[in-house]
Amino acid sequence: MSSTVGVPRETNAGERRVALVPKVVERLCARGVRVVVESGAGLGALIPDASYAEAGAKIGDPWSADVVVKVTPPTAEEIGRLSSGATLIGFLAPLTSPETVTALRDAGVTAFAMESIPRISRAQSMDALSSQATVAGYRAALLAAEHSTRFFPMLTTAAGTVKPATVLVLGVGVAGLQALATAKRLGARTTGYDVRPEVADQVRSVGAQWLDLGIAAVGEGGYARELTEDERAEQQQRLEEAVTGFDAVITTALVPGRRAPTLVTAQAVEGMRPGSVVVDLAGESGGNCELTEPGEVAVRHDVTIVSPLNLPATMPEHASELYARNVLALLELMLDDAGTVAPDWTDEILATSCVTRTEGDG
Amino acid sequence: MSSTVGVPRETNAGERRVALVPKVVERLCARGVRVVVESGAGLGALIPDASYAEAGAKIGDPWSADVVVKVTPPTAEEIGRLSSGATLIGFLAPLTSPETVTALRDAGVTAFAMESIPRISRAQSMDALSSQATVAGYRAALLAAEHSTRFFPMLTTAAGTVKPATVLVLGVGVAGLQALATAKRLGARTTGYDVRPEVADQVRSVGAQWLDLGIAAVGEGGYARELTEDERAEQQQRLEEAVTGFDAVITTALVPGRRAPTLVTAQAVEGMRPGSVVVDLAGESGGNCELTEPGEVAVRHDVTIVSPLNLPATMPEHASELYARNVLALLELMLDDAGTVAPDWTDEILATSCVTRTEGDG
Repeated sequence: MSSTVGVPRETNAGERRVALVPKVVERLCARGVRVVVESGAGLGALIPDASYAEAGAKIGDPWSADVVVKVTPPTAEEIGRLSSGATLIGFLAPLTSPETVTALRDAGVTAFAMESIPRISRAQSMDALSSQATVAGYRAALLAAEHSTRFFPMLTTAAGTVKPATVLVLGVGVAGLQALATAKRLGARTTGYDVRPEVADQVRSVGAQWLDLGIAAVGEGGYARELTEDERAEQQQRLEEAVTGFDAVITTALVPGRRAPTLVTAQAVEGMRPGSVVVDLAGESGGNCELTEPGEVAVRHDVTIVSPLNLPATMPEHASELYARNVLALLELMLDDAGTVAPDWTDEILATSCVTRTEGDG
Repeated sequence: MSSTVGVPRETNAGERRVALVPKVVERLCARGVRVVVESGAGLGALIPDASYAEAGAKIGDPWSADVVVKVTPPTAEEIGRLSSGATLIGFLAPLTSPETVTALRDAGVTAFAMESIPRISRAQSMDALSSQATVAGYRAALLAAEHSTRFFPMLTTAAGTVKPATVLVLGVGVAGLQALATAKRLGARTTGYDVRPEVADQVRSVGAQWLDLGIAAVGEGGYARELTEDERAEQQQRLEEAVTGFDAVITTALVPGRRAPTLVTAQAVEGMRPGSVVVDLAGESGGNCELTEPGEVAVRHDVTIVSPLNLPATMPEHASELYARNVLALLELMLDDAGTVAPDWTDEILATSCVTRTEGDG
């Protein structure tokens, strides 16, 4: 018999995303899968129940489904509502919250963590970290424009010209590139910096200049390695000098499992022109700016420091749509012709992203 | 002896602009004018006192200056602080708040209203209505993007493509054109509509489509005439059909001295796709959208309706800079070689923008 996929309403404070959107529900239904959506699951994304129903979903209790799909990690109470033998798919934070994985194992749940999908080309369509980082980068550039006391584009008026804003992005992964592209679209002059010199070409490909501080730190898995003490001191000093010249600085530098590196010191902020902006996307990991207050907008030395948390939730429909497509791609890897979830455990993607598995399963 | 120009701190709630910025202070000082800036006048725009001092201003009491420059109309208390024989320059709302002009006359003040500067080419550099509308239009597009649950640009990801947002601007004056240009920069597909068909070329010049509803209301001298009842009903119906197809609608339609026309009915909002956005720039005059709550963000029929008030104040540094340049151009028309304000009352610009004048002056 075909499997049932359940979509609960997300319960985290401020979370407006939902794991599936109507378009993706339609695709699953076409594969023979039955979809049950909790009433109000799309509310935060302004997607009414009726849109899910039109797409073929039943509105009802999602927790008794064979496969439950979520965005954020389940609470202990939510884990309690999962049946033994059920499958859960979602961001599960396996590295930072191993207790969630333990609780899922104890509950007899087979769980796939979206974060653990290997970064191989066949799995690109399932890469939810990247899709959500794209949203975060776009929103970060909008936030920088919103909190700026200045125009981003050049302006020619009868009373004279306004120069375009200058925007520096520190840490050029998926989010950083999207921030650069968006700031450029808005008319700003953009510059990117990363400790991995090989991203310079990507930075240039979105119309930005590459800031060369003369320090390289290429690490494993596409992330940066940690810098030595001397390198760090030199980087800090050169960055401090560079940062002060920009109207807006967007930081996105993360080192997995560690506190985010400090890239913008209090002194650098003090050196910035009054009215400038720092948007710090690393607030959840302590921040890239020394003066960041996670989740807050602070004005220090006449500079506005914005530290948004969970930016993808601020653009809930498309963030959900991209996430849902990632989930769909993963589900499609598990579905047989009858619309039943039947994972092939020899598949590298499934084996790697599965963080806990029902005993005897497969 | 050269004149003194005073710059008070604006006191209206939410007002972050200031009438002069340091760059313009420098220009005035170079002309021999003495400038006195109230401590904290630039605070809202994140311009510290020190920047004014560096530009040559004295930090002190601005109210005893020969010429006081403001952004918003003075309160009764502020009028009381002006000396008899002083000059005041600012937005004075002479049409909607004639009592301000009366109080200024009674206080023996010569006052120039920035709104009353004639729209002739020689006065373009003084056109503060246009410069502030430019800011409002830019911010309106940013607000639409911020409140949208969707991306404005097209996005190509490994999991598929996201279509660009469609943005409709109703009322294409200075603000509307800037909103179109900004939404286009962000990657949206843009469309403009106005009852004056001659602005179609301007709409196309910023990369937008022209929405032709087949109703023209060309009045005399290039202004719009009022529509007949039948024309209005037809416009409403055709607009209602058109509006529902857009991800974001930005409205800017104002008729001087009247309530803003209703362009987006409750029914049109109900017909929009859930998650769409209306940004209504006419909130201060009652709104162009029937469901607008001035100053609020409301969600109705799963559509977000944003009605910002005083948008120029949300980008205070550049809004102030443009305004200050407008004021500077007006002041330069009055300054003699010694840096003394000595208006030539035969000048059309000065005669027209002066709303009350000290008896026997000139």
